[in-house]
Amino acid sequence: MEKIRLGMVGGGQGAFIGGVHRIAARLDNRFELVAGALSSNPEKARASGAELGLAGDRVYDDFKTMAIREARLKNGIEAVAIVTPNHMHYPAAAEFLKRGINVICDKPLTSTPADAKKLAKLAEKSNALFVLTHNYTGYPLIRQAREMVANGDLGPLRVVQVEYPQDWLATNVEETGQKQASWRTDPERSGAGGSIGDIGTHAFNLARFVTGMMPAELLADLDSFVPGRRVDDNAHVLLRYDSGAKGMLWSSQVTPGNENALRLRVYGEKGGIDWAQENPNVMRFTRLGEPTRILTRMGAGASAAANSVSRIPNGHPEGYLEAFANLYAGAADAILTRRTGKTPETLLPGISDGLEGMAFIASCVRSSKAGGRWVKIAL
Amino acid sequence: MEKIRLGMVGGGQGAFIGGVHRIAARLDNRFELVAGALSSNPEKARASGAELGLAGDRVYDDFKTMAIREARLKNGIEAVAIVTPNHMHYPAAAEFLKRGINVICDKPLTSTPADAKKLAKLAEKSNALFVLTHNYTGYPLIRQAREMVANGDLGPLRVVQVEYPQDWLATNVEETGQKQASWRTDPERSGAGGSIGDIGTHAFNLARFVTGMMPAELLADLDSFVPGRRVDDNAHVLLRYDSGAKGMLWSSQVTPGNENALRLRVYGEKGGIDWAQENPNVMRFTRLGEPTRILTRMGAGASAAANSVSRIPNGHPEGYLEAFANLYAGAADAILTRRTGKTPETLLPGISDGLEGMAFIASCVRSSKAGGRWVKIAL
Amino acid sequence: MEKIRLGMVGGGQGAFIGGVHRIAARLDNRFELVAGALSSNPEKARASGAELGLAGDRVYDDFKTMAIREARLKNGIEAVAIVTPNHMHYPAAAEFLKRGINVICDKPLTSTPADAKKLAKLAEKSNALFVLTHNYTGYPLIRQAREMVANGDLGPLRVVQVEYPQDWLATNVEETGQKQASWRTDPERSGAGGSIGDIGTHAFNLARFVTGMMPAELLADLDSFVPGRRVDDNAHVLLRYDSGAKGMLWSSQVTPGNENALRLRVYGEKGGIDWAQENPNVMRFTRLGEPTRILTRMGAGASAAANSVSRIPNGHPEGYLEAFANLYAGAADAILTRRTGKTPETLLPGISDGLEGMAFIASCVRSSKAGGRWVKIAL
Amino acid sequence: MEKIRLGMVGGGQGAFIGGVHRIAARLDNRFELVAGALSSNPEKARASGAELGLAGDRVYDDFKTMAIREARLKNGIEAVAIVTPNHMHYPAAAEFLKRGINVICDKPLTSTPADAKKLAKLAEKSNALFVLTHNYTGYPLIRQAREMVANGDLGPLRVVQVEYPQDWLATNVEETGQKQASWRTDPERSGAGGSIGDIGTHAFNLARFVTGMMPAELLADLDSFVPGRRVDDNAHVLLRYDSGAKGMLWSSQVTPGNENALRLRVYGEKGGIDWAQENPNVMRFTRLGEPTRILTRMGAGASAAANSVSRIPNGHPEGYLEAFANLYAGAADAILTRRTGKTPETLLPGISDGLEGMAFIASCVRSSKAGGRWVKIAL
Repeated sequence: MEKIRLGMVGGGQGAFIGGVHRIAARLDNRFELVAGALSSNPEKARASGAELGLAGDRVYDDFKTMAIREARLKNGIEAVAIVTPNHMHYPAAAEFLKRGINVICDKPLTSTPADAKKLAKLAEKSNALFVLTHNYTGYPLIRQAREMVANGDLGPLRVVQVEYPQDWLATNVEETGQKQASWRTDPERSGAGGSIGDIGTHAFNLARFVTGMMPAELLADLDSFVPGRRVDDNAHVLLRYDSGAKGMLWSSQVTPGNENALRLRVYGEKGGIDWAQENPNVMRFTRLGEPTRILTRMGAGASAAANSVSRIPNGHPEGYLEAFANLYAGAADAILTRRTGKTPETLLPGISDGLEGMAFIASCVRSSKAGGRWVKIAL
Repeated sequence: MEKIRLGMVGGGQGAFIGGVHRIAARLDNRFELVAGALSSNPEKARASGAELGLAGDRVYDDFKTMAIREARLKNGIEAVAIVTPNHMHYPAAAEFLKRGINVICDKPLTSTPADAKKLAKLAEKSNALFVLTHNYTGYPLIRQAREMVANGDLGPLRVVQVEYPQDWLATNVEETGQKQASWRTDPERSGAGGSIGDIGTHAFNLARFVTGMMPAELLADLDSFVPGRRVDDNAHVLLRYDSGAKGMLWSSQVTPGNENALRLRVYGEKGGIDWAQENPNVMRFTRLGEPTRILTRMGAGASAAANSVSRIPNGHPEGYLEAFANLYAGAADAILTRRTGKTPETLLPGISDGLEGMAFIASCVRSSKAGGRWVKIAL
Repeated sequence: MEKIRLGMVGGGQGAFIGGVHRIAARLDNRFELVAGALSSNPEKARASGAELGLAGDRVYDDFKTMAIREARLKNGIEAVAIVTPNHMHYPAAAEFLKRGINVICDKPLTSTPADAKKLAKLAEKSNALFVLTHNYTGYPLIRQAREMVANGDLGPLRVVQVEYPQDWLATNVEETGQKQASWRTDPERSGAGGSIGDIGTHAFNLARFVTGMMPAELLADLDSFVPGRRVDDNAHVLLRYDSGAKGMLWSSQVTPGNENALRLRVYGEKGGIDWAQENPNVMRFTRLGEPTRILTRMGAGASAAANSVSRIPNGHPEGYLEAFANLYAGAADAILTRRTGKTPETLLPGISDGLEGMAFIASCVRSSKAGGRWVKIAL
Repeated sequence: MEKIRLGMVGGGQGAFIGGVHRIAARLDNRFELVAGALSSNPEKARASGAELGLAGDRVYDDFKTMAIREARLKNGIEAVAIVTPNHMHYPAAAEFLKRGINVICDKPLTSTPADAKKLAKLAEKSNALFVLTHNYTGYPLIRQAREMVANGDLGPLRVVQVEYPQDWLATNVEETGQKQASWRTDPERSGAGGSIGDIGTHAFNLARFVTGMMPAELLADLDSFVPGRRVDDNAHVLLRYDSGAKGMLWSSQVTPGNENALRLRVYGEKGGIDWAQENPNVMRFTRLGEPTRILTRMGAGASAAANSVSRIPNGHPEGYLEAFANLYAGAADAILTRRTGKTPETLLPGISDGLEGMAFIASCVRSSKAGGRWVKIAL
């Protein structure tokens, strides 16, 4: 089967998430990276392109030129991965969407609500696919969790607890020249959210994906504990759902001992589940009044939804890259379906998830600035 | 060494916490139970007394008679354990405090703020000891955690996460005649707080004990998920400290898969700790930038404060009863010190902790009723 | 109910296991310690007796005098706890058994096979009870494991894995004057087994208790890794059962990172269980082809056998002392039954378990000395 | 950088490990699969080739033709992955080695000692690289463990405990037509070892890799618990090292609740490590007398050796496929070095590891057949 021709915007030398996207795209052999505008620095763009084995004439100094050229090529890219800092998501995505090139974009959607709305409009008009890489939705047991909630295995939901603590920003590393820290703590590039935008949106989206419920209101208490930091590095958020269910969301980047400790717990009248990202091949499931069961990826009790995004037998751990690759595999399926003129059915996060995430960030900031008050979740 | 003569109010047949107090009092052989008003039902009181081997003339039909008589006896009780439902804490404690008999009282302090204040006044006037059995403070590693925070091992504190989920009230067991559930869900007997009074106060007190900090404000979102329930069974609470530190507190009795899952995490500029009650002999400790260390009770790295309340070597698990017994052992020490006319220095929770707990409950209820608003923590 | 009058041999100041026995005897309020020959050093014996609040005339300089006197007293002891180093088990137990006083003896049975056989004969002739404190059999979930195997929940057994590593003897602490290490590494006092006698017998007994099967043959490879040590400090043992089942047993006292890491895994045709002593309130249970279930003490799925030896609700950890106390509670029941002239039915380890343990030690030593050969398990 | 042209023998539709090799080869973008003899069934070979996107003229009906043709092609394969059942490893590898084509071969080396010796001779004469995919050596923390032992962080080694239990062969699935089970339990195709060959060799190799020590003697007790099974499905093995260190190795495929539970513990005079494959991003490390530290992949305390084979930050789990890919990445490095005429230095398992593994299997079988006796580990 011919691979899907992929381009990339961002992800040059020194970047983190670009490399992740490339591995994810490659893992299942569905994509071939053939073009890129890998850095806003032309020299670095070219060096990065060479390193990745791109043909010289497919390495671009800027994404607009790339979009224009690739759209005209007979074998131009069919999809583009946008892996820049947040503030460039919109301008970059816009150029490709306009030209009907499918977009796979890192989260959060954009750095500002205004950009998000414009991007949404563009996406609506475009016949191209827009995938937002909320990669944690790609974990097999998260797919299973979603299926279990939808099936009613937990009964009507009551309580959602989601947390995502890290510790890598416990000091002001952004002032040491650390590139990842630098743009993430710069509101011009990352947007108004710090931890809430970088990881809180993941937590929010994960709960949303699994429960199927969108909270109506939230209340946030954001802090910047590290002196001089301009965005939040700790966020305490309460959630209210229309159904009466309640939630708690915590994101932090200043809590020593936490690496990437995303954890989701969902409780309903009949049961509860508990999943943690750092050991993602197991999930605890308790039916009320029965012993807790340890569900494993591909193990006894694994669901069809989980197995369909697993590659290797139970006991053989799959990880972050495999989960990320599941979004790319899903994107590949969707792109093939689109080729046939059909509209793909998919679990892939997209524009509406992106808008929700932006609304989440904006509402957190709004609530916190108002002293920690309940606000509707809205852009 | 002569044992301290102990009486008990409440704790007759069918009760839970009375038995716990008796084992805790007995474990280190410092107390001897010699008298009791074990039930408000005289027949049951007598049957319970006989079962416990009390002399017939030391088994009382009511606590007032008991207080009067015991105070007059040459070898009357020196201390009384009050283990009734909450609404009886005040009237019972009052009778003994008035007569100079030391009181060891279950938490929360009382069922109403008014009672709490009256009790506090009485205790202030009395020369008797008042111990409130916030038993989780008796765990050796909690003592160590407190010492570590005080020593600055974690640096200035930033974030406090405490949670206490259970699942035993996920259905309306109170309507099945289950005695424990019945009074705990009855505001007349338990007070205005449901989960927040029964276990939330423990969580609150534990964080208070370890961090040494009293939050200034809180915001609570309380729910009664089980239809017909008259008190909260889930509580989402945000905390603000004057220092700028922030906290999250969650208590729930409706989350399947959680038995008694009290967990405390405290994070400072330099380090973090993570302790969970169900496996209380280990605590994770991370100095920022170093691998997480697993501290064990009596193991390498255990502190003097922890070892002083441990009985057996590392790897030999101590549990809930031993932690509870540490409060009784502390009470015994304090009582002996008082006998000599000195004022004991002690880590025992007392009246002020009780008032703080009552303020916590009242403030949660107040905040939640106001729609989930920030309120000062006050009675 | 009148308490059972208990005496103690050994357990003076500086001892470890004597204190454990005293707490265990006290925990459920069934025994009262009234007499003791607490040390072979008369001065220390008296000081220890005073510390424990024994009447002066019930503190003895030697156990023989104690046995003679107590047997004559109207209210003499009804049971004696023997908590000396191993070589004194036989001479002490003998004096009490001869006089019809019930014996609760620490393990292993004796320090030599000859003593073990003599003791067994004495016990057979005596109408007194003999309890050997293989205390790990007192854990509620171990009682449940035994019941599950007996019920066929695991199907016919195939594989038994039991291990008991520690690290406290990784250096030659016996030469530093550490009393516990000193006698345990002295073959004159502990017997021919080092780790195999001190903890290997526990592992052996635990597997025996849960599986109900006695291995027929074993092969052992014993080592003394610490230079100058005269007994083994690491033991690798293979087991063969007549049924065709196989086992592996490992005990060690020189493996850094292991505190008291007794763990038992039992596998049959239909299922498997996995239990570890350091967190004894949970046990993993897997039916072949189903998700692993986490059974908890007093939780959903707990058996009657487990609940009958539990004191407090699930999620409230019970530990080592409570398990030990379960043997004392069982002994109290048995003693009361004997008072009525009936023969108690009991799960308590006794003489035959002691003989098996001695055969295990002797056979390990024999096998290892022969270069690591299969030997029948026999005294 | 031009990718290395890779061929594959075996790994057609329905196979397991072939797919793993392909992902592993692809993950870091160093190889391109261009040719294959994917099945001994020509029709299946062609269908599989088409599915993988191979050019029709590079899909071969048999590996000999493939070796001959590819060796002659200007752009013929530079390396071949051999992923057939064990009995075909030798004949297939021979054809490629003879022609100077690098071989990446699944373990164990061959199905018979005779084949192993012949293959070793061929490999010695060939200037081609021979890599044996003992993939568990590719885990970053295993690389770190090896480095720590070599650095003396554990001190002189005393005890090695390695185990590898599974449960997927607890019933006679080989009779249900399950392809993986079918050849693995057929001595003609898998060799004399069942569990011992399939997973025991992994356990053996892992301990060998980390400790750097080759045991001198072993003693094995092998069983075939499932009626009718012709190879072992449970193996209990004792190991003796010349240094005096001792080891225990357990492999099983019949123990319910174990998925792929490879675990290695190594203890020396100064410290111990504990690593388990199912959650491979953490390793416990204890210096004697200090609290256990939790080392994480890419976390604080991670070594250069570990980081050099890691792709993503700590807290982002890497798994089995990434570890496997580390062998392919190492092979790519080695092949590039060879191109320059130099001899690569590498941690890759090769022929000598394969011979050791074969000696391990043969010696286990020999020992067990002799009734469970100590034997030299030799082919």
